[in-house]
Amino acid sequence: MPDTQKKTKWTLAELAREIGACVEGDENLSINGLATLKKAKKGELGFLANPKYTGELKETQASAVIISPEMKKYCSVDALLMADPYVGYAKASRLFRRKPISKTGVIHPSAVIAKTANVHSSVHIGANAVIEDNVELSEGVTIGPGCVIGAESKIAEYSVIYANVSLYHEIKIGARCVIHSGVVIGADGFGFANDQGKWEKIAQLGSVHIGDDVDIGAGTTIDRGALDDTVIGDGVIIDNQVQIAHNVIIGDRTAIAGCTAIAGSTEIGKFCTIAGAVGIVGHLVIVDNVHITAMTLVTKSISCPGAYSSGTGMDEFESWKKNAVRFRKLDTLVRRVKKLEDRNN
Amino acid sequence: MPDTQKKTKWTLAELAREIGACVEGDENLSINGLATLKKAKKGELGFLANPKYTGELKETQASAVIISPEMKKYCSVDALLMADPYVGYAKASRLFRRKPISKTGVIHPSAVIAKTANVHSSVHIGANAVIEDNVELSEGVTIGPGCVIGAESKIAEYSVIYANVSLYHEIKIGARCVIHSGVVIGADGFGFANDQGKWEKIAQLGSVHIGDDVDIGAGTTIDRGALDDTVIGDGVIIDNQVQIAHNVIIGDRTAIAGCTAIAGSTEIGKFCTIAGAVGIVGHLVIVDNVHITAMTLVTKSISCPGAYSSGTGMDEFESWKKNAVRFRKLDTLVRRVKKLEDRNN
Amino acid sequence: MPDTQKKTKWTLAELAREIGACVEGDENLSINGLATLKKAKKGELGFLANPKYTGELKETQASAVIISPEMKKYCSVDALLMADPYVGYAKASRLFRRKPISKTGVIHPSAVIAKTANVHSSVHIGANAVIEDNVELSEGVTIGPGCVIGAESKIAEYSVIYANVSLYHEIKIGARCVIHSGVVIGADGFGFANDQGKWEKIAQLGSVHIGDDVDIGAGTTIDRGALDDTVIGDGVIIDNQVQIAHNVIIGDRTAIAGCTAIAGSTEIGKFCTIAGAVGIVGHLVIVDNVHITAMTLVTKSISCPGAYSSGTGMDEFESWKKNAVRFRKLDTLVRRVKKLEDRNN
Repeated sequence: MPDTQKKTKWTLAELAREIGACVEGDENLSINGLATLKKAKKGELGFLANPKYTGELKETQASAVIISPEMKKYCSVDALLMADPYVGYAKASRLFRRKPISKTGVIHPSAVIAKTANVHSSVHIGANAVIEDNVELSEGVTIGPGCVIGAESKIAEYSVIYANVSLYHEIKIGARCVIHSGVVIGADGFGFANDQGKWEKIAQLGSVHIGDDVDIGAGTTIDRGALDDTVIGDGVIIDNQVQIAHNVIIGDRTAIAGCTAIAGSTEIGKFCTIAGAVGIVGHLVIVDNVHITAMTLVTKSISCPGAYSSGTGMDEFESWKKNAVRFRKLDTLVRRVKKLEDRNN
Repeated sequence: MPDTQKKTKWTLAELAREIGACVEGDENLSINGLATLKKAKKGELGFLANPKYTGELKETQASAVIISPEMKKYCSVDALLMADPYVGYAKASRLFRRKPISKTGVIHPSAVIAKTANVHSSVHIGANAVIEDNVELSEGVTIGPGCVIGAESKIAEYSVIYANVSLYHEIKIGARCVIHSGVVIGADGFGFANDQGKWEKIAQLGSVHIGDDVDIGAGTTIDRGALDDTVIGDGVIIDNQVQIAHNVIIGDRTAIAGCTAIAGSTEIGKFCTIAGAVGIVGHLVIVDNVHITAMTLVTKSISCPGAYSSGTGMDEFESWKKNAVRFRKLDTLVRRVKKLEDRNN
Repeated sequence: MPDTQKKTKWTLAELAREIGACVEGDENLSINGLATLKKAKKGELGFLANPKYTGELKETQASAVIISPEMKKYCSVDALLMADPYVGYAKASRLFRRKPISKTGVIHPSAVIAKTANVHSSVHIGANAVIEDNVELSEGVTIGPGCVIGAESKIAEYSVIYANVSLYHEIKIGARCVIHSGVVIGADGFGFANDQGKWEKIAQLGSVHIGDDVDIGAGTTIDRGALDDTVIGDGVIIDNQVQIAHNVIIGDRTAIAGCTAIAGSTEIGKFCTIAGAVGIVGHLVIVDNVHITAMTLVTKSISCPGAYSSGTGMDEFESWKKNAVRFRKLDTLVRRVKKLEDRNN
């Protein structure tokens, strides 16, 4: 649904219905905002998802809280009970957005829209946006100011594109996607053949296909494929400044945190969680349910679910330096130990 | 102050006054530019901050140089003496900028400015910039071409926003800030709750608060907070393509070099220096005066000032490979050594 | 040459001439597209560059393939024979681009062009682009929608700048360059002097000079120099989200993969290949023909051609963790081994 939430107060009964919780207390209590347990004031709703913060629950000034049933005994205010309070918080958060993010059917006069573009009557297009030939914008789509949507691209219903996003030609975006500012989708993959020292450009004839319910963070770049398409599955969430190279395939519901880079033609399964600043080399296959920890360099295919890491830990510089120096002779050290073992036998 | 420097020649006396130095030589010597010691020509001013380049000082064709008093004996041209010549160079550099960077009071006719926006008469707004509802632009602010400044955002006096910057709604920028092209401030933090495999978006209800005298480099992204704000202190300097996640707090005067990523809710103290390509995981606390070296992954809070590092050193590939292979069995190696020690006792 | 390819079908004879191959089979066979061996249909052209895929060659439905002469025996369709089929594929790919990427001489009425700008009659400028004072755009240049080209900048013939690129003032771009969306060229280098805790900005008085035939990927940032220029040589290819700091010098034909960061004043030779997510510290000198592997941190100058690496390999988390813990005591371990050796002697 487009987010045009104008309602600013909710009763506990209404909230319970929206987020899937049970009311413990006054069904008619009015809530006007969301806050942390620590900073919540009267009239606001807090939540406890991590038992580490139970102390804050006991002392909160919030009028009500979202908690799990086991936490009831620590709670002296009205409550919305549910098994997963963090999910409840997520659903509640969307009710308290202060501004509508779409202006249904409003097209700013400064927007430049090709006559051949097919724009649903409910679409909102911001100032100075550029919509090129044969673009299709479905029901409820929002295009922010300064965006450039390339020829033949299609954006499905209720997707929101924030300001200054650049889509190249023939890009397919699914329904209910969110694309943040500065994103570039469909630039040429980094394809070059080396002809005796000179780089011959390989035209990237494929495209990018983004599924439904995909979130793409600010500054992220997703390149078009060389021949086949680059494909992002349904429900994938991608943080800021992620780089996705040509012909990468990301499985449904996988999450990729900030500043991660995935090189060309690598396939990543579903339900994976890739932490920030990870590097994944090209032409690998990673199965479903794999977790990669922060700043890991993935150089081989991964065929078993589980967690994977690389790197050393952090240390005080002087201490780290001594160990880093020794790393250069680690192979030698192993041989020295072998020699000692041989001598001992 | 807005930088509208048109004066192209300065006497040594004038320069001395501007940068806080003493003249050694002809007070009326005219200087028309700044250059390295190596490439300086007659009429230009050089500087020596690093004794490593004393040879270049002896041979320079510059008409004058900024040096520390100890370097006088190596210097055969006129000089501006001060304790910290690098600071003197910094101050001098600003006098020799060739172009004014603001056109006071000029608003390009193509700029799209909401009627409800509050724009000081001295503000300069470039072509095709978009200023949304209730934005406040204080005295001397410059907004570059193609910028999008979201509703309710406030930019304090003399801040300069270069071309194609995207500010979301309700962002607060302090005075005398510099924000380079491609920056995105106030996109949603990467907040999602996992509801049985499906990602539930957490609306980011907080904002971003940038202090005074903050410099933000090209392509950097700073996300809005989930409930509380993301906060950048006064005098913070941030390089290009840095990623600052929701609810990060950066203390005054901290410096962050290029491509560093700081994850959500981490607090960094004052006067820290974070090198390039560093990763800092979320929910940590780092005290004042901490230095993190390049490409370090910080995974724990840091409670003592000092320098911290991670990683191995660089090596020729073949040599590195042998050592990297041995790293996979480092724990085993320690046990083998323990066994040998036990046998020896 | 500007890429205005409208021809959609090519005979094998024509293709052979364009890409430098010999026809093996029917010279008049008509080809209408390019595809992978696996997915090619009748009428399409495939290629085999990697013997690993010889199986796909045997089974391909393509009407013709680009192969090396040794592969003839595995091939049952018409062929274009050449020593380097990958180069042949690259050249063929450019013939099958579906859309012209330049509209010669078309300047969108919404583009904002300074009267003092010098724009060749064949230049194409897209909607809402901003061309500032004294900019020079040579024959065949394409400027995409939403670009901002700063005052005094010069772009040489047939260079293509995609949408939403930001060039600062006095930037020089060579001929036949390709610059993708979101790129920022000429922002201030990260120059600051520390004056007793306070950061004094160093105005960046240099510029950026990009050579001929340079490719720059989406979101890449290249900063202007402090006094001298930042210089990118001819034929350099740069991937997405690369950060190039002030006064870096990149030698001709060097290739830099995605998300790599090169710090200030480092000089890199010709024909180098720098993988993705590499970090190179400042003030280094790297000779020609050096290869740096992914995610390596380069902290010293490199004076010998060859390959260089840093980091550990990847491992399952539990296993990695044990080894990472031991790394903190590697120096101690070496001393323990030394003790054992001494005892043994």
